[in-house]
Amino acid sequence: MLNLFEMNTVGHITHGLWRQPGNNRSRYADLSYWIELATLAEQGGFDTIFLADVLGAYDVYQGSAEVALREGIQIPNNDPMLLIPAMAAVTEHLGFGVTFSTSYEPPFAFARRMSTLDHLTNGRVGWNVVTSYLPNAARNFGLTDQIPHDERYEIADEFLDVVYKLWEGSWDDDAVVGDSVTGVYTDPSKVRAINHVGEHFRVAGPHLSEPSPQRTPVIFQATGSKVGIELAGRHAEVIFTGGRAPGDAARNVAAIRAANERNGRLATDTKFVVQAAVIVGRTDAEVAEKLERYRRFTSVQGTFVQQSIPFDPLLHPADITVREALEREGLFDLIEAGGLPLNMAVGQFAASLDQAWQKHFFVAGTPKVVVDEIERWLAEENIDGINLRQYHSFETLRDFVELVVPELRRRGLVSTSRPAGETLRERLFGAGPRLPGRHLAARYRGGANLDVPPPPFTH
Amino acid sequence: MLNLFEMNTVGHITHGLWRQPGNNRSRYADLSYWIELATLAEQGGFDTIFLADVLGAYDVYQGSAEVALREGIQIPNNDPMLLIPAMAAVTEHLGFGVTFSTSYEPPFAFARRMSTLDHLTNGRVGWNVVTSYLPNAARNFGLTDQIPHDERYEIADEFLDVVYKLWEGSWDDDAVVGDSVTGVYTDPSKVRAINHVGEHFRVAGPHLSEPSPQRTPVIFQATGSKVGIELAGRHAEVIFTGGRAPGDAARNVAAIRAANERNGRLATDTKFVVQAAVIVGRTDAEVAEKLERYRRFTSVQGTFVQQSIPFDPLLHPADITVREALEREGLFDLIEAGGLPLNMAVGQFAASLDQAWQKHFFVAGTPKVVVDEIERWLAEENIDGINLRQYHSFETLRDFVELVVPELRRRGLVSTSRPAGETLRERLFGAGPRLPGRHLAARYRGGANLDVPPPPFTH
Repeated sequence: MLNLFEMNTVGHITHGLWRQPGNNRSRYADLSYWIELATLAEQGGFDTIFLADVLGAYDVYQGSAEVALREGIQIPNNDPMLLIPAMAAVTEHLGFGVTFSTSYEPPFAFARRMSTLDHLTNGRVGWNVVTSYLPNAARNFGLTDQIPHDERYEIADEFLDVVYKLWEGSWDDDAVVGDSVTGVYTDPSKVRAINHVGEHFRVAGPHLSEPSPQRTPVIFQATGSKVGIELAGRHAEVIFTGGRAPGDAARNVAAIRAANERNGRLATDTKFVVQAAVIVGRTDAEVAEKLERYRRFTSVQGTFVQQSIPFDPLLHPADITVREALEREGLFDLIEAGGLPLNMAVGQFAASLDQAWQKHFFVAGTPKVVVDEIERWLAEENIDGINLRQYHSFETLRDFVELVVPELRRRGLVSTSRPAGETLRERLFGAGPRLPGRHLAARYRGGANLDVPPPPFTH
Repeated sequence: MLNLFEMNTVGHITHGLWRQPGNNRSRYADLSYWIELATLAEQGGFDTIFLADVLGAYDVYQGSAEVALREGIQIPNNDPMLLIPAMAAVTEHLGFGVTFSTSYEPPFAFARRMSTLDHLTNGRVGWNVVTSYLPNAARNFGLTDQIPHDERYEIADEFLDVVYKLWEGSWDDDAVVGDSVTGVYTDPSKVRAINHVGEHFRVAGPHLSEPSPQRTPVIFQATGSKVGIELAGRHAEVIFTGGRAPGDAARNVAAIRAANERNGRLATDTKFVVQAAVIVGRTDAEVAEKLERYRRFTSVQGTFVQQSIPFDPLLHPADITVREALEREGLFDLIEAGGLPLNMAVGQFAASLDQAWQKHFFVAGTPKVVVDEIERWLAEENIDGINLRQYHSFETLRDFVELVVPELRRRGLVSTSRPAGETLRERLFGAGPRLPGRHLAARYRGGANLDVPPPPFTH
């Protein structure tokens, strides 16, 4: 599975690199950028463009959004969904995975937007379910502070339940008749309200959209946390995973496959992709030039910002611990410090962040070297594909398409024939276009179980 | 001003007519329908495609959504915003007016969606501000019943205040530097939070999108009510008006122009369009054939459904009054009967609804007859243009483009040269692309007044 990792913004994850000569990232607000990108991705054999998103500014680092703004770190940004119709119009089988948060917007409107996209793309959309981690996002949507982590996941689970009812349970497959002789467009006996009444949502229905090719879009999720793994086991079809050390991804894959089975699903009902940092060139000299250039433009502060590090590690003595630095700044009791390596020396911590652009799955080399590394990952980490990090638009994608894809094809790692099936689900799983009957969403088909709560979400 | 009236649904306002041979309305969920439509509209000299929307099913008539579903009356429907990027990609100067309700979704996410559209279209979007009239819509968004009419307008006014702060006040014109040498993408001192705290919304900001060509999209509104006129006087740039009798539209135009002036705006800051039912043919015989065909396929019940008539007038004696019919059905005390002609005989009421497809601005004839009528409307009702009702897709549009537009051009009623300016606002007003300084939204420019409430919304 080849995904291209993107975001409707100037600086997605390779901070500072928008400054490179010839980089098209500052064209992100221009339709032509996305049309060119989608055309290239489809011609190059990619399965999807995976669109990240955030709903706020990164304002934890140094207590303000100043550095995020100055360096263009995921701000300014625009809505990702609105890119898809234009990209769909110039492609035939490229899929689109779009990020949408379950924490702040009503499920009814979202359900119709995704059905609309599934119609307009002929079943080529996926939804990356997120719960939003930026405190500023909460404040943009009427809250005074973040919803606690696990509660966000409980809301997500109910949000999914609501949209499954709309997508799967509200309209039968044969509800739309479209008979111009009798004048019956829809058979009303095959459409129903969902009357969802839960802890977080009340939604009457019926769904406004008629059944789209996939009904429920392919469910993507990125996770590592315990509650996230449980949510994935109930819902996810594609997991965006990662890890800092060898074996991390494989352990995550195993944990989610086990969670699938606890939820009556097959281990193989979920595919796994990792973010892949690939720098490829025809020669070692070309690779070295790119590496040097990418390093030169990389912003270290950008990483601090994106990781929401509440302090500047470079302002502290290198040999005190992260915990001591936080205490000196009076921050230790104020923040969710759970994600920070509290006992690591500050100097070492800064260096590890500095190298964060060089992710665990990082390879720089000629096509053979790159594909060896991909092959090793597929085998050793049990993954199904990659989510390609971009250092330069469109250099990264073009290089990959011209140099890596042919070698992947030669080794049979990417199909040379067009996959069967028109929809994203069929392309990924060889079955579909609807979710398999063992998925939680399927319980609502034909209007069944609309008033019977799903098995409790335990975590 | 030539607008094409559309909706992302099978049956918009000419109910039953989807059944006509060759009508493409059942392709509404297909991207190719909209691409074809937009191309034809732009080539034909139209200014905008105006997209209506609803957020629920019509379930007042006979107490259920059964007839709406069976006849395809605005259900199934899909999201209108998602059509715009694909239509923008195949056009250069066509505008898009899209309906969005202020009653149920958070302003922060909407503000970014509209900024995204304004970027992707190079400033060709308008927003039709509505407050949603369907009881089912309220129940789809967590409420147990409709928000009362005037309160919906108060929420709308605050919603507009929030998005003005985001669109006009959060980023200065020169905030985005994009300097690849210094590495400064945005000057942080020129971007600010809005920290809106009002009766209905709390929104921190900053806005996530950088300034788009128009910043605030062109504000459309449809209104007739007293509170609606006051809202229009504060905000609207294009009013979709109408009327049942000669002089109704002119009176509405005068009332809103006066409301503009009470709000420190010019009378001419708002343009007015009416829904126009135009049936044109090369010969009288061709016109007669179309008229007969449209009448034959028209659904009378469709009108009852769309007008949310709570009872079926055809089931009552023709000579009792509407009030008596409601009383017999035990409905009189249950419904907001304000919009119904309570003292009219039921038979006459049914007939008037039956003819509702034949709106006040209705003309059937050869091009000369049609353009005479348009010219008379422009002069007598003080309007600036029309919103073309479609009886058949694409017959209605094609007929208008081939037969009416050339005659409009001959008489100088439609410009033959391409209008100056790229944005919708410039095309409509000959000035822009930003709102004039006298508009309420302009008070937030440069970050001014963010903590000073606007003049109270009195009505």
